[in-house]
Amino acid sequence: MVTNNRNIAMAQKGVLIFLAIMLILNCCGQVNNTFNLMPVPAGLKANTNRVRITNQFRLSIIGPADSRIYADASRFVRRLSNKTGIFLDKQGYIIRKDTNISAQLLVRVERPGRLRLGEDESYSIETGASQVVVTATTDLGAIHALETLLQLVSTDADGYYFPGVLIHDTPRFAWRGLLLDVALHFMPVDVVKRTLDGMATVKMNVLHLHLCNDQGFRVESKIFPRLQELASDGLYYTQEEIRGIVKYASQRGIRVVPEFVVPAHTTAILTAYPEFASVKRNYHLQRYFGVFDPVMDPTNEKLYPFLEKLFGEMSALFPDQYFHIGGDENTGKDWENTPHIKAFMKARGMNSTADLQTYFNRRLLPIIKKCGKTMVGWDEIFQPGLPKEIVIESWRGNESFYNSIKSGHPSVLAYGYYIDLIQPASYHYLNDPIPDSVTLTDDERKLDLGGEATMWSEMVTPVTVDSRIWPRTAAIAERLWSPKAVNDVDDMYRRLDMVSLQLESLGLQHISYKPPLMRQLANSWDTRALEVLVSVLEPLKIYERNEGDTMYNVFSPFTKIADVATPDQKVPRIFNRQVAEFLSKPSPKMEKEISKKLILWKENDAQFKLLLNNSPVLLEAALLSENLSLLAAAGLEAIQFIHDHEKSGSDWLQESLAVVNKAKLQGGRCEIQVVDAIQRLIQRAAD
Amino acid sequence: MVTNNRNIAMAQKGVLIFLAIMLILNCCGQVNNTFNLMPVPAGLKANTNRVRITNQFRLSIIGPADSRIYADASRFVRRLSNKTGIFLDKQGYIIRKDTNISAQLLVRVERPGRLRLGEDESYSIETGASQVVVTATTDLGAIHALETLLQLVSTDADGYYFPGVLIHDTPRFAWRGLLLDVALHFMPVDVVKRTLDGMATVKMNVLHLHLCNDQGFRVESKIFPRLQELASDGLYYTQEEIRGIVKYASQRGIRVVPEFVVPAHTTAILTAYPEFASVKRNYHLQRYFGVFDPVMDPTNEKLYPFLEKLFGEMSALFPDQYFHIGGDENTGKDWENTPHIKAFMKARGMNSTADLQTYFNRRLLPIIKKCGKTMVGWDEIFQPGLPKEIVIESWRGNESFYNSIKSGHPSVLAYGYYIDLIQPASYHYLNDPIPDSVTLTDDERKLDLGGEATMWSEMVTPVTVDSRIWPRTAAIAERLWSPKAVNDVDDMYRRLDMVSLQLESLGLQHISYKPPLMRQLANSWDTRALEVLVSVLEPLKIYERNEGDTMYNVFSPFTKIADVATPDQKVPRIFNRQVAEFLSKPSPKMEKEISKKLILWKENDAQFKLLLNNSPVLLEAALLSENLSLLAAAGLEAIQFIHDHEKSGSDWLQESLAVVNKAKLQGGRCEIQVVDAIQRLIQRAAD
Repeated sequence: MVTNNRNIAMAQKGVLIFLAIMLILNCCGQVNNTFNLMPVPAGLKANTNRVRITNQFRLSIIGPADSRIYADASRFVRRLSNKTGIFLDKQGYIIRKDTNISAQLLVRVERPGRLRLGEDESYSIETGASQVVVTATTDLGAIHALETLLQLVSTDADGYYFPGVLIHDTPRFAWRGLLLDVALHFMPVDVVKRTLDGMATVKMNVLHLHLCNDQGFRVESKIFPRLQELASDGLYYTQEEIRGIVKYASQRGIRVVPEFVVPAHTTAILTAYPEFASVKRNYHLQRYFGVFDPVMDPTNEKLYPFLEKLFGEMSALFPDQYFHIGGDENTGKDWENTPHIKAFMKARGMNSTADLQTYFNRRLLPIIKKCGKTMVGWDEIFQPGLPKEIVIESWRGNESFYNSIKSGHPSVLAYGYYIDLIQPASYHYLNDPIPDSVTLTDDERKLDLGGEATMWSEMVTPVTVDSRIWPRTAAIAERLWSPKAVNDVDDMYRRLDMVSLQLESLGLQHISYKPPLMRQLANSWDTRALEVLVSVLEPLKIYERNEGDTMYNVFSPFTKIADVATPDQKVPRIFNRQVAEFLSKPSPKMEKEISKKLILWKENDAQFKLLLNNSPVLLEAALLSENLSLLAAAGLEAIQFIHDHEKSGSDWLQESLAVVNKAKLQGGRCEIQVVDAIQRLIQRAAD
Repeated sequence: MVTNNRNIAMAQKGVLIFLAIMLILNCCGQVNNTFNLMPVPAGLKANTNRVRITNQFRLSIIGPADSRIYADASRFVRRLSNKTGIFLDKQGYIIRKDTNISAQLLVRVERPGRLRLGEDESYSIETGASQVVVTATTDLGAIHALETLLQLVSTDADGYYFPGVLIHDTPRFAWRGLLLDVALHFMPVDVVKRTLDGMATVKMNVLHLHLCNDQGFRVESKIFPRLQELASDGLYYTQEEIRGIVKYASQRGIRVVPEFVVPAHTTAILTAYPEFASVKRNYHLQRYFGVFDPVMDPTNEKLYPFLEKLFGEMSALFPDQYFHIGGDENTGKDWENTPHIKAFMKARGMNSTADLQTYFNRRLLPIIKKCGKTMVGWDEIFQPGLPKEIVIESWRGNESFYNSIKSGHPSVLAYGYYIDLIQPASYHYLNDPIPDSVTLTDDERKLDLGGEATMWSEMVTPVTVDSRIWPRTAAIAERLWSPKAVNDVDDMYRRLDMVSLQLESLGLQHISYKPPLMRQLANSWDTRALEVLVSVLEPLKIYERNEGDTMYNVFSPFTKIADVATPDQKVPRIFNRQVAEFLSKPSPKMEKEISKKLILWKENDAQFKLLLNNSPVLLEAALLSENLSLLAAAGLEAIQFIHDHEKSGSDWLQESLAVVNKAKLQGGRCEIQVVDAIQRLIQRAAD
């Protein structure tokens, strides 16, 4: 305990010195030169030094760091070698005795970092004439510094170098998380590990694993083996694998927060142990996605010893302080329709099933505490009477988030960071956890822990999941790390493009999964026409994809055009910007750029149709392709009118708007993303 | 034992009936219609039936099969759904009670297959009017049938269907292996699993895991934990992971044969347990690749109890009958230079270190037998006095292979299947285990077990390894499965192209790893110029890559142009064929085709040079790009001469040949693959 207090005191002292330096660096406004850094550091000044990277490069760590920094530093050297092609084999693994104060990269650490909420993660980087020096209170900060350095690597005619910088950096929020749902669609260990690699690159520090739901229970239990035997389809992590994931995360400075949802969303648990259900039914794993009635019976006294044993076993696998119990989306129907539960509620004066759930949560709290953990739940559990020590994760709105803070709960914001909903990075980026409209007292500010991107996995598989997480999550990571004033969307996208490439160098497949899937879709090596079409498509947003005739389930093919289309596509983003620019100030250059694309889209349909012979799976996109072609043709005509300074007739306008309306229809669960821009061209032609 | 004998009798009866049917199908010559099947079945007749694949599709298994077929059939349905985009969610997991004799796909199995050498793997497929019926003696045959069916899926205007076929198929050789070396470069579990997926697709049935070498010991030992603690760099499989790999393989009908090399190539074991070395040294893991002197001391009586315990523990992890003890590349120096070993040899009248190694092997044999295993070793151990029951794997030449067979050893051919040496698929394909020049008696034929592609991992990483294994290994798989008469190289390449796409649908990254690596190399999203250059390059062949200034080791970057270049490139293969065709019969069409490519290559260098600014790692290929440009320019001039029916002057010829010679130089450990063809154009222009 003495050590801890001392560490905290040292950390606080560090933060104070740090803030003073940042003021000197004038870091509290927008940083001028952001290089390709993401997240942008709190304070950065460039200078003219260059520390060249040659095969003589050495890295040395000074000070009593945790062993994780040695693993991470070794990994850093390999990544640097892989990026530059330079044989850095002077150092295989960086080890403690390998101290060399004249190393090209010197990392000074004051004390071992502890992987816990609020730990000091700050660091400084200073490029001298021939040496880069990293200074950090803890190895957790040093790990962030190494990521910054990899993003800084620059080139000139003489080769690779670290550019001259003076950086003082520290995160704005302490909880910068990503929820990975491995329950609805299971994600194998290698997916989890590469996700952790990506998170570390953008300095995220919490992996929230959603480990069970109606579709499966995903962790081996040695006490209750029926969970994995009857309720996982064989898709679960062994305890050894969980320990491996936790270790892998720890080496990257990332905490792992497990979530075991109770009392609803428990069809899987009830499939294995139906005796804990509110209603007697023949329980089977749920194959569809949604909100279902099965729920545990909180009046069953045997439930609590069961949960105590289960959570005792599970929480021991996860060293983190926090333990998430879900608590969301309880329909309450199975409680209301069960006489003994109704009687129980009545006897205790409960007015609603929400009251009963609060009762359940109050029973749960001592169990979680007995495990030595702090309880976290979704904002449904935020009800009057809920003990204040419970952390609330808000998904139902910013309002709900501030209410929970203002009522004294430490809170984490998920709302606005639902990356499964296919919204653009800019939307998430501008979702500030403390917008200007909100005022928090200092004490309330302390309760605002940060936020979490949430990757729910109804509509993703191990093949496509990276493309739904990355690169957009990097924008969320920056929102949670960088100063509030860093909010230039264009600069964010510029850097996101570079970080996206860096992420794929780590093995993330958000870009590279596309060509194989397109070859499979086209049933051919030649996918050009499909690529052109897909480049302007995005999957239906929010929850629309799962509406209509065919309900998706765990056995559905996620190998179709909506799966190869990605959120926040670059081609339409650039095209839409070009059209806006053209409409505000027509220029021959922009006219040519826009026309080139319109011609490509117009002519693509004939090529796309050729694919259909070999590839019936693409038929669902045939109309989409045709509509894109007609739309582009109308756009070209509009450009011609504008070029000629002629006003189109109203017949043409009506016809063209009919084309636009058709082009707004979905096909293959996708939408064309250039409709609005072309519509604007058409309107202008008629003005 | 009774069951086994009965099974063998049944299998033999099955084979006889089978051979009779194949004679009726006239299958012993070249099969006429090979569809896109690889390997080509032993007997195939097409008919006009079409069994359509709709969302009503069902698969049913009849008969007492091993449970593995249910897992494989469930996987089959998911793969079929992923390929066609059809929601086949009527069946999630195929289960035993799910018998429906009117299912669209009916699989009849006579008895559970046992995963052992020589087990019946035959199957038949018959497409009726509305049902496909698979018949197999064992589920192992049925698994092969399902792979054949996936390759048969066809399309027309109405959608997807299984075409009309009558297939009777059985393998030519019983041992159709792939050696995966996970010692020199460790390969994570997911690499092993996707390799198994690929193997199953082309009906290979032995994964030979090379599990230790000088660079590391890759399996957790609970008895000798120093092996993984001191001699693996943390890169090893836990026993749980090994069991997972074995199970995954078994579900695909694949045996796993482990190899633990002794007595040489044991630097890793000696790092952990130096007391077993012949020479007292400070042993460390070897970081370079090659043949080294460290070797166990066969005169140390404590060595044998150690090996008995170690191999007892290891062999228990691998249920297969065979256990490979390596035995290769012992320099013998550490034996010759050690007095007590010399004395030991002299006292026993041994003339050479080979004799001492035979002594060691004779000591080893009872240990391996006590483990219940059959011993396998590389052909160095094939020495006079070696017990005949030991299986020899030949890597030093076909001669050595036939000698080993003729001297009575069951033998497996690896020579000619060294896929790490970057030779074309055609070379491996035409390396028949029993060429026309060799005559084997019936008894000798029984000793010819088959062959193994060998993926040694000096020069590959988990990122690049797929591109060295696939698709070429599919050609070897066909050589080992299909009748000898199936040897049309052009048809092989046609089908290899399709199988290559099928393999990537399984998650193999032999194609898709390239764009990310090129983006990293180019340090840019725009990799067109790099793609054009790489498309005509292959890495240096045989062992040339590791010669010259820089010796590769385990820490080297394998992220360079030689890593993104792949063996047996398609662009040069097609270009070279076109040039041959053009030279034998000039035509305007071919002239145009060839010129188009030459212009592309000529003009590419200017674009490639632009990449260098951002990407010093590409500098090593700058001369290569320039040489390709000059070579293409000379080729275009040659085409012009030929077009004009003019004879070039001898000055031009000399200049052009100088260009050709420069273009033969390596750059970035790669060679241009179109030099010879362009040289022939130049020669023709001067004729």
